Amino acid sequence: MEPMADSSIVHEKTDQAVEALQSAEFDAWLTFARETHNLGEPCLPLVLGEGFVWPGMVLLTASGRKIAITETHDADNVRAHGVHEVFPYEESLKDVFLEVLDDVAPDRIGLNYSRSNPTADGLSYGLYRELEAYLDESDRDVELVSAEPVVSRVRGSKSATELERIQASVDVAQEILRTVRTAWRPDWTEADTAAFVHEQVAERGLETSWDPETCPAVTAGVEGEYGHAKPGDVTIPPGEVMRIDFGVLQDGYASDMQRVYYHQPAGETGVPEGLQSDFADARDAIQAGFDALEPGVQGYEVDAAAREYLTDRGWPEYQHGLGHQVGRYVHDGGSYLGPRWDRYGDAPYGEVHEGEVYTLELGIQTDYGSISLEEMVQVTADGARFLTDQQTEVWILEAN
Amino acid sequence: MEPMADSSIVHEKTDQAVEALQSAEFDAWLTFARETHNLGEPCLPLVLGEGFVWPGMVLLTASGRKIAITETHDADNVRAHGVHEVFPYEESLKDVFLEVLDDVAPDRIGLNYSRSNPTADGLSYGLYRELEAYLDESDRDVELVSAEPVVSRVRGSKSATELERIQASVDVAQEILRTVRTAWRPDWTEADTAAFVHEQVAERGLETSWDPETCPAVTAGVEGEYGHAKPGDVTIPPGEVMRIDFGVLQDGYASDMQRVYYHQPAGETGVPEGLQSDFADARDAIQAGFDALEPGVQGYEVDAAAREYLTDRGWPEYQHGLGHQVGRYVHDGGSYLGPRWDRYGDAPYGEVHEGEVYTLELGIQTDYGSISLEEMVQVTADGARFLTDQQTEVWILEAN
Repeated sequence: MEPMADSSIVHEKTDQAVEALQSAEFDAWLTFARETHNLGEPCLPLVLGEGFVWPGMVLLTASGRKIAITETHDADNVRAHGVHEVFPYEESLKDVFLEVLDDVAPDRIGLNYSRSNPTADGLSYGLYRELEAYLDESDRDVELVSAEPVVSRVRGSKSATELERIQASVDVAQEILRTVRTAWRPDWTEADTAAFVHEQVAERGLETSWDPETCPAVTAGVEGEYGHAKPGDVTIPPGEVMRIDFGVLQDGYASDMQRVYYHQPAGETGVPEGLQSDFADARDAIQAGFDALEPGVQGYEVDAAAREYLTDRGWPEYQHGLGHQVGRYVHDGGSYLGPRWDRYGDAPYGEVHEGEVYTLELGIQTDYGSISLEEMVQVTADGARFLTDQQTEVWILEAN
Repeated sequence: MEPMADSSIVHEKTDQAVEALQSAEFDAWLTFARETHNLGEPCLPLVLGEGFVWPGMVLLTASGRKIAITETHDADNVRAHGVHEVFPYEESLKDVFLEVLDDVAPDRIGLNYSRSNPTADGLSYGLYRELEAYLDESDRDVELVSAEPVVSRVRGSKSATELERIQASVDVAQEILRTVRTAWRPDWTEADTAAFVHEQVAERGLETSWDPETCPAVTAGVEGEYGHAKPGDVTIPPGEVMRIDFGVLQDGYASDMQRVYYHQPAGETGVPEGLQSDFADARDAIQAGFDALEPGVQGYEVDAAAREYLTDRGWPEYQHGLGHQVGRYVHDGGSYLGPRWDRYGDAPYGEVHEGEVYTLELGIQTDYGSISLEEMVQVTADGARFLTDQQTEVWILEAN
């Protein structure tokens, strides 16, 4: 169970929602959920800061109203945030909802459903039908539409408190990845390295950003299996590199980054020129993407800048997008810095907004092994800034 | 994140599903989900034993086919269970689904949606629309219906491996509740008792069955707040009782029980006759429910047996149902041993089946405090059996 957001986040995010609703094609946004401890509703931590046991609703309006309809037992926890008008019900959610509906009088209600964006798709089909049945008993003529545009804006543009938390999550993950440099031993397999990282996470009482079986993903040397495979029993041959893909979840917010380490052969000083040059190509391709990132561009334009930088240097195209959003989930929906491939649907056409947090990630397969880098950045008013301390050169492992 | 079921459970549950489909009004059951690490799909641990990162499907048929359609990267984990025909896709889930649809040729497909049962409502509205769009491209005429009858049967009737796990979860929770008897000190508040229970859970590397803020729920003496309130700062006055409502989640399965403890005043031996008699009323009301429980009865009949036993003795009616099902969740959907009150919808009319696991729980407010008991039982071929060691008398706290 992820921790629920605290009151400051609920204040900030519901304010953002009201603002987003003022330019949306619907005048109210309804989140409708139940048993969220088990079933989840990705928007509830932002609009309510609590889970629901019994069926409950959060209704936010363009006019600035923030309404929660909850079963009596859920009401006190919601009131404690001091954000919502709380309407408790004992027997019938429907009756209270219909009264609120008459009072708010929306023409169009946005609901959490989306074919392409899971974080905007928390409404179950059963509850959708339940809502339809409620509306059948109302005299009002209300149109139901997807709330995805508002969900994407609210989830994407991080508030001040969210940015603090993401930075803290980045800082911890970076610290753990730096520790690997000095803790590593030449006989460590990929699995040994992963076990060490897991110990570091557990010592801090945290969780990994995604399934611990593949977080961290570790690729050792040319023979290591690239991608999100489980860390295996290969070691890093001297003269080859290891790449780690990793992040932590802290206070409800995720981080995600990749770092590349070099196993220096005995007697060698420095890093071979070929490796330096390959590393620079990956690093500078990320920089090219970074330079293209600013409010108003479409995601695919940013991806193209990095992709072309690499292909111009003779490297094959990476088989994924340059960057995804990060927030409460490591893949936090909405606009995507990816190529205009069918499998990505509309996501690469989305417009980049200030306050969004993206990864910038790409890899090349070299004679030294996988050089795959990933940074995290925040979109600013006129560009972007790094949340990670950008890796500018390969990290030499200091064998003990 | 709950642990995913192992292969034996997936074998057993998909066999049960095929059998249930043979007498259902639809000939195939489709579970369609994505990003289940974050969003959850309550049926996936049973029918797949894995989560999906990318959109994926499990299709089970009355003819005995067990089909999984997964993105390439999810395929190996699914194959490892040795249960499904696995159809991986790279670019288009839709194309593979439409091919499978032509091959399987179902007339009616059951989907995971339900207005009243959250554990049968894992399909998001966005994915429902996605599925409709796929079917629009098919020549086949397929009817979509709710899979709830099959979901309830499969979730409800526990397999051999599930029963082992539930028993193990019961045993651990009982052990912890017994430990309270000897560890307790007279100056412990409700919150102190809860903290001790949490330590016991943490030492065993487990989680509580529900939100740890109210698991355990602790009610100390006449002044203690009854229900699922957070444990407070009251102690148990001598001559009064404490009641604990508690369970653990172990290997993906929950337990849930209530025990009643007595703070014996200094110099007193035994238990006051009035307390003995009140305790016996609660205990024997549960026994009356137990005696009424067998395959084929409707839930409300079992509730009525216990309820009438109490009201015949002059106690007020308890304000909830006698028993809910327990499984992967502490409230595991489907038939409910509850009264025919509006708020419970159809659930109390559901027929009881062999293999289902229920709680039997009720409480009375006495001069000694809340005497609220809860046992767990399994429905057998011709009755029921206790999974808990039934509490037959109040437990005297042994102050140190």
